[in-house]
Amino acid sequence: MHLKTKPRNDAFIMPAEFEPHSGCLMLWPYRSDSWRENAIPAAKTFATVANLISTSEKVFMGTRKASFGVARRFLSPAVQMIELEYNDSWMRDIGPTFIKNRQTKTLRGIDWDFNAWGGETDGLYEHWEKDSKVCQRLFDFLRADHYKPRVVLEGGAIHVDGKGTLIAVEECVLNENRNPTMTKAKMEAIFRDYLGIEKIIWIPQGVYNDETNGHVDNLCCFAPDGVVLLTWTDDTTDPQHPISQKAFEILNNEVNAQGQPIVVEKIRQPQPMFMNEKEYLGLQEGSAKKRFPGDRLTGSYINFYIANHVVILPVFDVPEDECAIDKIQSHFPERQVIPVYSREVLLGGGNIHCITQQIPQGQF
Amino acid sequence: MHLKTKPRNDAFIMPAEFEPHSGCLMLWPYRSDSWRENAIPAAKTFATVANLISTSEKVFMGTRKASFGVARRFLSPAVQMIELEYNDSWMRDIGPTFIKNRQTKTLRGIDWDFNAWGGETDGLYEHWEKDSKVCQRLFDFLRADHYKPRVVLEGGAIHVDGKGTLIAVEECVLNENRNPTMTKAKMEAIFRDYLGIEKIIWIPQGVYNDETNGHVDNLCCFAPDGVVLLTWTDDTTDPQHPISQKAFEILNNEVNAQGQPIVVEKIRQPQPMFMNEKEYLGLQEGSAKKRFPGDRLTGSYINFYIANHVVILPVFDVPEDECAIDKIQSHFPERQVIPVYSREVLLGGGNIHCITQQIPQGQF
Repeated sequence: MHLKTKPRNDAFIMPAEFEPHSGCLMLWPYRSDSWRENAIPAAKTFATVANLISTSEKVFMGTRKASFGVARRFLSPAVQMIELEYNDSWMRDIGPTFIKNRQTKTLRGIDWDFNAWGGETDGLYEHWEKDSKVCQRLFDFLRADHYKPRVVLEGGAIHVDGKGTLIAVEECVLNENRNPTMTKAKMEAIFRDYLGIEKIIWIPQGVYNDETNGHVDNLCCFAPDGVVLLTWTDDTTDPQHPISQKAFEILNNEVNAQGQPIVVEKIRQPQPMFMNEKEYLGLQEGSAKKRFPGDRLTGSYINFYIANHVVILPVFDVPEDECAIDKIQSHFPERQVIPVYSREVLLGGGNIHCITQQIPQGQF
Repeated sequence: MHLKTKPRNDAFIMPAEFEPHSGCLMLWPYRSDSWRENAIPAAKTFATVANLISTSEKVFMGTRKASFGVARRFLSPAVQMIELEYNDSWMRDIGPTFIKNRQTKTLRGIDWDFNAWGGETDGLYEHWEKDSKVCQRLFDFLRADHYKPRVVLEGGAIHVDGKGTLIAVEECVLNENRNPTMTKAKMEAIFRDYLGIEKIIWIPQGVYNDETNGHVDNLCCFAPDGVVLLTWTDDTTDPQHPISQKAFEILNNEVNAQGQPIVVEKIRQPQPMFMNEKEYLGLQEGSAKKRFPGDRLTGSYINFYIANHVVILPVFDVPEDECAIDKIQSHFPERQVIPVYSREVLLGGGNIHCITQQIPQGQF
């Protein structure tokens, strides 16, 4: 049912990702202008991620009819495929945000408007009509009541602690390419009304060269107990340095919605990585944003997915992996951190958090 | 403690792989004449396998000191590394066989002699001195009492049902390149005395072109409830056909140690696959058996590992994968089958079962 009320008035809020889940939504990659070699190397990584999450919670894989055969070769039978049409496979951004009524344990969905990270101005591909219908199709499948606020927003553009605090990046969420007439005050009202947020922390910029205009989910995220993990570099010549430095200053001087100081943990970023010639040559012509050899990739360890019993962490076969694994493990003592070599997902412009979307524990 | 008695007299027998485990042993791959591109592509697959098993049981990864850094980048912190020296990374064959006293729940190890699958005659590499010390090192680590029967045998050369039945391949186990003076009767006595076996089923040949001289673990294996899964092809022109046909005839007319007929389930093999030029060029010179472009690979779905809650199944990105996943899942209803694309392990001459070794539930 499409609800015309406001979630806040219905006592629904967005839980933290580290709260218990009913499941996880993903989309099987296919487009050959975003994913090299007809998306097969990427699909193998998507399958590894899905199979790992499926040891911990139910995974639903949106799949085009044409991809059913190949997906079935790589996925555990425990992963349930849902026939879907979509333009690209970033479920975090294309799919719904789920909210929960903590008293009744019921869930509802929010269908944000989607314009491929920037619409006609600087969206990342032409035609996102199929993406725009993904939420509705999923609500039908899940029998989920839902809201449609008529605001362009992606799931990767927000992080919440489940207790009233939200972090977002200004250059992304307030970008004219999303909602031309949006103001900070209006956006804060949306967060309050739709996600149950009391306290919003704005960071000016996201990760250097991030083509989403700086999604927060590549820059910093909440861990339990009031901690925020932040991608970091000590190299003052790296363009990422001032961005992380500014984010640190803001977060480190902030309190959350509970009035408690935020504890910031710096996670040293992987060394700068670049698309190589061979990777470039594996891409086909299409409407997706052109990528070139030498393009700096937006590698970050922050882009992990927190499942019920495991944390699926992107790694890159660089020395910095080891410290990231250990530090992130220390903040999730009740879960097992599982590194997944995910350069193929990074080459598409995102990482493991971007290709997943949690369904909180509860009933629709 | 090195025991001079016989396990049978001490009431120890080898449990089936599908009985509960305390953990799993593996070895991190490194040698560049067995594993292309300095073993990095293979290592990523080994890590995926280890991380998946680690969601289900404790994994111990034997690792050379020189590989600790790279292994730590790919492995979950839950995977425990053990510093070890070894010549190659096939734990199934190099490592111990574990046996259990079902009354006291205690475990002991067997240290078979190892000669690199054929010794000076047709072993797969020169120098296996380090491999030969792996069992002792693991017994020290695990504080395991153990037996040393002075017989050349590999873990992949035997499969047991935990109730007194063993399957082995004659061309491998009775090959002169293992134990020159061994007879079938003597070998059967070894199986009785060391593994608690009452009934031995001999299959003449293993999978076509298998350089181990035909390990049973690539050809057929036990599933619960008296079932044997057998790699199969209907293509009568395939040299695998008469081998599988003969194995089927034998198994299908046999009873197990309990006197029950064996139920054979045919698992259609992946289509014939061959090493390609690029894969060949990624191998460095060394003492390992030379491989060449066009060599037929010994692809088989039988070479899976049964962990406590998951079955880690090799798949090859071929249409036959789908049916294998479904059929094998149907025989392990209490476990989740997880396919892992494992061509990189296959290129080395084995697959997921060959790189793992279960430790049954119990104490040393």
